[in-house]
Amino acid sequence: MTTTPLKLIPLGGLGEIGKNMMALELGDDIVVVDCGILFPGEDAPGVDLAIPNISYLLERRHKVRAILITHGHEDHTGALPFVLPQLRVPVYAPRLAYGLIRVKLRDYRLLDSADLRLIEEGTRFRVGPFEIEGFRVSHSIPDAFGLAIRTPAGLVVHTGDFKIDYTPVDGTTTDLRALGRFGEEGVLALLSDSTYAEMEGYTPSEQVVGDSLMQAIGEAPARVLVATFASLISRIQLVLNAAEAHGRKVAVAGRRMVDNVAMASEMGYIKQPPGVMVSLQRANQLPPEQVVLITTGSQGEPSSAMVRIANDDHRQIRILPNDTVIISASAIPGNEKVVNRTINNLVRRGAHVLYDRIAKVHVHGHAAREELKTVLTLTKPRFFVPIHGEFKGLAAHAALARQMGVEEDNVFLLQDGDVAEFSKSGGRRLEKVVAGNVFLDGVNPIDADSSLLEERRTLANDGVVIIVLSLDRHTGVPVEEPEIVSSGFTEDSTRDEVFSRMAAEVFDSLDRRPVYPIDVGYITQKVKKTARRILYKDMGRRPMIVPVTLEV
Amino acid sequence: MTTTPLKLIPLGGLGEIGKNMMALELGDDIVVVDCGILFPGEDAPGVDLAIPNISYLLERRHKVRAILITHGHEDHTGALPFVLPQLRVPVYAPRLAYGLIRVKLRDYRLLDSADLRLIEEGTRFRVGPFEIEGFRVSHSIPDAFGLAIRTPAGLVVHTGDFKIDYTPVDGTTTDLRALGRFGEEGVLALLSDSTYAEMEGYTPSEQVVGDSLMQAIGEAPARVLVATFASLISRIQLVLNAAEAHGRKVAVAGRRMVDNVAMASEMGYIKQPPGVMVSLQRANQLPPEQVVLITTGSQGEPSSAMVRIANDDHRQIRILPNDTVIISASAIPGNEKVVNRTINNLVRRGAHVLYDRIAKVHVHGHAAREELKTVLTLTKPRFFVPIHGEFKGLAAHAALARQMGVEEDNVFLLQDGDVAEFSKSGGRRLEKVVAGNVFLDGVNPIDADSSLLEERRTLANDGVVIIVLSLDRHTGVPVEEPEIVSSGFTEDSTRDEVFSRMAAEVFDSLDRRPVYPIDVGYITQKVKKTARRILYKDMGRRPMIVPVTLEV
Repeated sequence: MTTTPLKLIPLGGLGEIGKNMMALELGDDIVVVDCGILFPGEDAPGVDLAIPNISYLLERRHKVRAILITHGHEDHTGALPFVLPQLRVPVYAPRLAYGLIRVKLRDYRLLDSADLRLIEEGTRFRVGPFEIEGFRVSHSIPDAFGLAIRTPAGLVVHTGDFKIDYTPVDGTTTDLRALGRFGEEGVLALLSDSTYAEMEGYTPSEQVVGDSLMQAIGEAPARVLVATFASLISRIQLVLNAAEAHGRKVAVAGRRMVDNVAMASEMGYIKQPPGVMVSLQRANQLPPEQVVLITTGSQGEPSSAMVRIANDDHRQIRILPNDTVIISASAIPGNEKVVNRTINNLVRRGAHVLYDRIAKVHVHGHAAREELKTVLTLTKPRFFVPIHGEFKGLAAHAALARQMGVEEDNVFLLQDGDVAEFSKSGGRRLEKVVAGNVFLDGVNPIDADSSLLEERRTLANDGVVIIVLSLDRHTGVPVEEPEIVSSGFTEDSTRDEVFSRMAAEVFDSLDRRPVYPIDVGYITQKVKKTARRILYKDMGRRPMIVPVTLEV
Repeated sequence: MTTTPLKLIPLGGLGEIGKNMMALELGDDIVVVDCGILFPGEDAPGVDLAIPNISYLLERRHKVRAILITHGHEDHTGALPFVLPQLRVPVYAPRLAYGLIRVKLRDYRLLDSADLRLIEEGTRFRVGPFEIEGFRVSHSIPDAFGLAIRTPAGLVVHTGDFKIDYTPVDGTTTDLRALGRFGEEGVLALLSDSTYAEMEGYTPSEQVVGDSLMQAIGEAPARVLVATFASLISRIQLVLNAAEAHGRKVAVAGRRMVDNVAMASEMGYIKQPPGVMVSLQRANQLPPEQVVLITTGSQGEPSSAMVRIANDDHRQIRILPNDTVIISASAIPGNEKVVNRTINNLVRRGAHVLYDRIAKVHVHGHAAREELKTVLTLTKPRFFVPIHGEFKGLAAHAALARQMGVEEDNVFLLQDGDVAEFSKSGGRRLEKVVAGNVFLDGVNPIDADSSLLEERRTLANDGVVIIVLSLDRHTGVPVEEPEIVSSGFTEDSTRDEVFSRMAAEVFDSLDRRPVYPIDVGYITQKVKKTARRILYKDMGRRPMIVPVTLEV
């Protein structure tokens, strides 16, 4: 009897940071790991976020059995509100992620219709032909899991996002014994986090940051403000510990930070030293040397607490002389400029600012090369698929796996939409499927190659020139020279003169004889062509040109 | 007799990287150091570059005696074509910068009217009451100088951009003896490069890169492509040396790289090993293991050679199997994403790519803290002004100077437009003057707070909605419902329905009685208000709204 081969279909997160989603397909059953978003930034003007293109899953809707979530970060959970209405399947998640997802789905009024279930350590559950076991990993949020997925074709180990931190804040280390056990059992395929696969050595432990924070808060002459990720629960714990040790009170600013601290405390992920947490109002009444504030804004987000503070635009918090500000994060690629701007503004207001360039106030949550080697060694997989990361990270991890003894042909360097098939007899690539970004423009999904984005880029660079032409409604003959207006175009003093010349040229270029039927499309094309030529020749500019015809 | 005090007026480069310009004013004489540009990127959509606001100088045009250039980088020379037509003064520059400026001014047809003069080592020249002596510094372009400016008020030392490289490629080290001599003489004020003042220790020598390149080119199995800055002449020399050592030929791709290599070779800044340089055409005929290509594109510039190669869009160069690509640069803040994209694309095409994260293929050209201490110690200035850098760098350098013994009150942490006055009796701050960015939109100067930029940002995010309304030319009464079109707005399926509802509402909202005279301004404001309300209420969008009225 031959067993059904296992297909691996990455739908997000391979070749681009964020928006993680991996489908495993075995015959008539599909299980999906993670369901994340990414923030495209300037690549897609006006667009808030991107979700994975799930056409592949929608076409096989009847096969999809469940979505498994590895941890509570947005790049692993954020697309659920958009995917679940289209794909009504159970969602399995670790306890903290479960809590965060509930909050999110409630916001979208999707909680009642959702089927949320818990992934707990040491238990196994079945989803169709897949038997799933979660195992603990260290990451920059508590309750992060990797997944061991047993299938008739063999055991797949998916690490999720991880690092190996031997001295984590919450005492939960990556479960190396479980990885060893899987290795003993025989791993068909290892899917392992490649975000930092280019980095030599080890990622430092969160404990390093703990020591730095303890020292910085101890030495600070007055108030301390700490900005970090709202989901970085262990960092918040470290700040609480340091504040307690130095007899300070802690208050929290920024809506998401307040919500997360409350939720994590309630769920037991944050252990509040008794009496340490106070309201912002109370903190403002205490002597500065007794206060620590924890805020959002470590990525320079315009409406966050720390950015408002830096701009002297926060209702309750102003920078005071001798304030120490700790930016306990590093800039996500693309955010460097806004993070630097925030730091500059804080320094301008007189704060002493500690940030990753000058102090050990942050470590990230992904494994470096020595840690990746540990996992490869423990699991000794037959097939290897680097996941999570830009292509250069995936390629570096693939090369590392080959060096570590995975057979050349068994390393599958996949990108989103590539399909690999593994069976006992071997692995092969199948034809590519549809994958990629779907941008959400407000609530509207638009394709990554939508002309809307191209139009916005043109508008951003050179503005818009609008040419309004009145046509005789009976003959289609232009009645007079067009009206020309612009927005975001130019302050060039010759503009009005060029526009009036252009109006005359457009008018002259058009037919004076009646044409039946009136061909508005032809006329607007001609108007556009004339205008484009003149604006480029006379002004060197290529604005968006919008001809409008009125039949009068 | 009291001597006239010296004023220092930074007009660019203090608090923002790039666009360097510092004015020194003594009674009726002003001398200006550097005249650079910066590239504002996404901060100013559609804008190519920013130059310093020179209002202060233009208002005192009769006092300005000269512009002194420290070295040939664009952030120190790039604004000359825009400033010289307004301020016809002699420009003094080191030999290489002199050559580069000549080329630039010729492009702008300004060469004939320009008065260019050489700064040479060991000579002094007078400009009004200022006696100027150039001294050598190491930087990432040859022929970089600091300036010792002797004035009746005392000696000012301006470091330019520098690092202390004891083993530079061209054998020219920062002239520590000159700095010591100035210290002996007594330095009134030190103005010192702060770009990397947050970095502990020493900036590595260019020699480190030389060793890496020698090894990488030696070990490469086939062709090697090196992308770097076109102005980084010493890096190009290192590549030529390594190519020669390993029996390879070198060709150059990218217009600016070709021009710079030719110019630098002609002027003697590049020493071409005999027979090593070949044409690109010739290189393409050689076996890959005998070829090195040097290209532009280290910052991911869209039209550069390396980006075209990465996109498989270069006419003469395609990535071949086993190609090694070396990105011998680091991303300037803001360019991280495009540089990463270029690397990802190269890896996707099968190249083995070396870049700063994984190999020592770049060092930068600015001093770290230990080097800054050396300069402070040698010069022992009475007053200290950190120059060149973001505010956090300036502040770090100011703190360092205090630690090194400069009196608290004598450290002047200035930003562009701040004015400091130094005399034998002491230093003080004077009132701020106009300074800041002037953006060049094409060739048009626009203010940093121009509404044009705000319009473009709105257009980029939400596009434009155009409402064309026909008014009776005699009565001003709308003839029919307006025509509504949009660009870059939305793909929302309800758009047309919202537009037709909006057309009706706009029409209904307007007066049906003739009003004399016709108040078009009032009508368009009303149209705008109605449209803005509907688009936000019904679609949650805030596009640019452009009402156009036609009188028919």
